[in-house]
Amino acid sequence: MANPILVEITRGPLVESVHRGSVAIANAEGEIVFSLGDIEALTYPRSSLKPIQALPLIESGAADAFGLSDEEIALACASHTGEPMHTTRVSAWLERIGCDASDLACGPQVVRYEPVRDAMIARGEQPTRVHNNCSGKHTGFLTVARHWDIATKGYEHHDHPVQRAVAVALGELSGIGSELPWGVDGCAAPNFALPLSAFARALAKLAAPQSLSSQRGNAARRIVHAMIAHPELVSGTGHACATFIHSARGRAAVKNGAEGYYAGIAPETGLGIALKIDDGAGRAAETAFAAILDKLGLLGNDAAARAILNAPVANTRDAVVGERRPAEALI
Amino acid sequence: MANPILVEITRGPLVESVHRGSVAIANAEGEIVFSLGDIEALTYPRSSLKPIQALPLIESGAADAFGLSDEEIALACASHTGEPMHTTRVSAWLERIGCDASDLACGPQVVRYEPVRDAMIARGEQPTRVHNNCSGKHTGFLTVARHWDIATKGYEHHDHPVQRAVAVALGELSGIGSELPWGVDGCAAPNFALPLSAFARALAKLAAPQSLSSQRGNAARRIVHAMIAHPELVSGTGHACATFIHSARGRAAVKNGAEGYYAGIAPETGLGIALKIDDGAGRAAETAFAAILDKLGLLGNDAAARAILNAPVANTRDAVVGERRPAEALI
Repeated sequence: MANPILVEITRGPLVESVHRGSVAIANAEGEIVFSLGDIEALTYPRSSLKPIQALPLIESGAADAFGLSDEEIALACASHTGEPMHTTRVSAWLERIGCDASDLACGPQVVRYEPVRDAMIARGEQPTRVHNNCSGKHTGFLTVARHWDIATKGYEHHDHPVQRAVAVALGELSGIGSELPWGVDGCAAPNFALPLSAFARALAKLAAPQSLSSQRGNAARRIVHAMIAHPELVSGTGHACATFIHSARGRAAVKNGAEGYYAGIAPETGLGIALKIDDGAGRAAETAFAAILDKLGLLGNDAAARAILNAPVANTRDAVVGERRPAEALI
Repeated sequence: MANPILVEITRGPLVESVHRGSVAIANAEGEIVFSLGDIEALTYPRSSLKPIQALPLIESGAADAFGLSDEEIALACASHTGEPMHTTRVSAWLERIGCDASDLACGPQVVRYEPVRDAMIARGEQPTRVHNNCSGKHTGFLTVARHWDIATKGYEHHDHPVQRAVAVALGELSGIGSELPWGVDGCAAPNFALPLSAFARALAKLAAPQSLSSQRGNAARRIVHAMIAHPELVSGTGHACATFIHSARGRAAVKNGAEGYYAGIAPETGLGIALKIDDGAGRAAETAFAAILDKLGLLGNDAAARAILNAPVANTRDAVVGERRPAEALI
C-alpha cells in the first residue's frame, strides 16, 4: 500500500503536486507512539545519521583527548553550508589532529550558502573538500582514527574500525544489530539502512540518555547539547535545521538528511522522530517535519519556523501563486 | 488509488526513493492508446503548454506580419537556459516589435546554464527579464498584441485577448472547452489545468495536423518543425529536451514543464504524450519520459539520451553509488 500524502503543493485553485512519506515517533522505552505509513521498510537516514556517527568520537575518548569544544561536536553532526564559520573551524580542527584537507575522503562540493558560493565564483575560487557539507563529520572520523593511532587512510571504508564503531552504536541504539545493509553516501562514507521505526528508537535513546550506559549517555547528552547550542554550525545561515532548533528553544535537536529524511531528538519528552519522504524531496521533508514538530508542541513561534509549515509558492515576480502545506494526514 | 511508481532511485543494494506518476498517450482520433495511473485528474502542464501557447502567434498572422523565423517560433515554445543564443535573439525580436525588456511581464530569473550564470556572477551582472526562461513565450504574446494593435500592458492577464486565444486553442484541441481552471505560472502568465488524457489528445492533434483546419494545421506544422529544427533554442546546451529531440532524429518534438511534466509530439505516428510526476520531480519526469520514448521507439541511440533512461547516481568523489531507472510499470 502506498504511504499517505504528507505535503501538498498548490497553484491557484488546485493541488499541483503531492509528496508521500512515512513518519515514526518512538519513546525511550522503544514504543512507537505515533506513525504514518510503512515504518518497517528499509531507508537510509543519510545525513540524519550524523548525530549517531558522532558517537564514537566522544565514546572513544577522542573528543576529550583533542580537547574538542561543543562547536566541533556540532560540526561533526553537521551538513554545513560551507560558510567561513564552518570552513575555518574545520580547517583548524584538521590541523590540530595533524591532518589537512587531503586526508578528507569526501570530495569537493559547491558551497550551498549562495552569497559565499557567488563570492567564490567571483574570485574564481574552486571549492575544496573542506567545503563539502560533511567535512566536519569526516574530521570527526579522522579524529577517532588519530586517537586510536590507526591508519587514517581508508577511514571511510565499511570495514574500517571507525565505521564499525558507528555500525555497532547504531545497531545497539536501534536494537536491530550492527549487520545492516549499507550504501555509499554522497561524501563516500558508508550509510546504513534501517526501518524508520528502528531509527526513531535510536533517536529516542539519544533524547533520553538516562536509559543508556553512563559513557554512551554522556556522549548522547554532549551531542544533543552541542547541536542545540550551535544551530548554525549544524547547518547554516537561514537553514531549516537552524530555524527549527532556534524556534524549539532548547527542546529539540533536529537533523535533515538527503533524499527527504528528517530526524528529531526531543530531550524534554524523550522522543525520537524519523521521517522520510518517498520521493526524496527536501521541500516536503521540511514542511512535513514542521507539522510533526507542531503536533508535538516543538515548532515554536518563530516566524521563520511557521513559514516552513505553510510556505508560499512565489513566481519570478515575487507574487504568491500557491502554497506548500501539510496534507490532511498531518493536520 | 495511488498512481504507480514510475521511477526508482537506488543506492547500494536498496531502492532509496521512488517517484509516482501518470502517463497518457493519445492518437489523432482522440483514443487513449496507452495509459498509466489516473489520467483524468486535473494537472497544470506548465511549460509543456508552450507549443499550444504559441498557436495564436501563428494563427493570428502575427508571425508572418513580423517575419518571424523558425528560430523565433522555437523560442516562443522554449524554456530556455539563458544562454546568449537565447537572450540575443529575444532582445532582437523585442526590438523588432517595438518593445523592450520592460514590456515583459515575466520577472528576472537566474540563468540556468551554469557557465553563463557563473560568468554573470563573476562580472557582477544581475539577470534581467530577458534571462527568464519564458522570455521567448512572452515575446510571442507581445507580438500578437502588437499585431492586433491592442494594449500590450496586461497581456499576461487571464482575460486579455492573447490569453483568451490560448485558452480557446487549448479548449478546441483538447476537446474539453476553453473555460478551464487556471493558476499563475512562474512567469506570471496564466497556466490552464486539464486532465492528462485531454492534454495528450491536444498534443496528438499537433502531431497529426491533417485532422485540423488548414490554418491551425499549418500553425501546428510550423511549431513542431521549429522545435525539431532548433532543439537548443527550445531548451539549452545539454538539456534533456534538446537531447531527446536530437536523438529522435526528427520523429519527436518534446517539451518539459515545471513540477514534473513532460509533453511529446510524434508526427510520424500522430501520437501525443503527456506525463506528470506526482511529486513534481524533474529528474523523475526525464527518466520516465525517456522510458516512454523508448517504448515508442523514439528514444534513439544517442548516448546522452540513453543516459537519461538509466542515469548513474554519483557522489562528490564521482563514484557511482546508485542508479535512477524506470520502475517495473515502465519496463
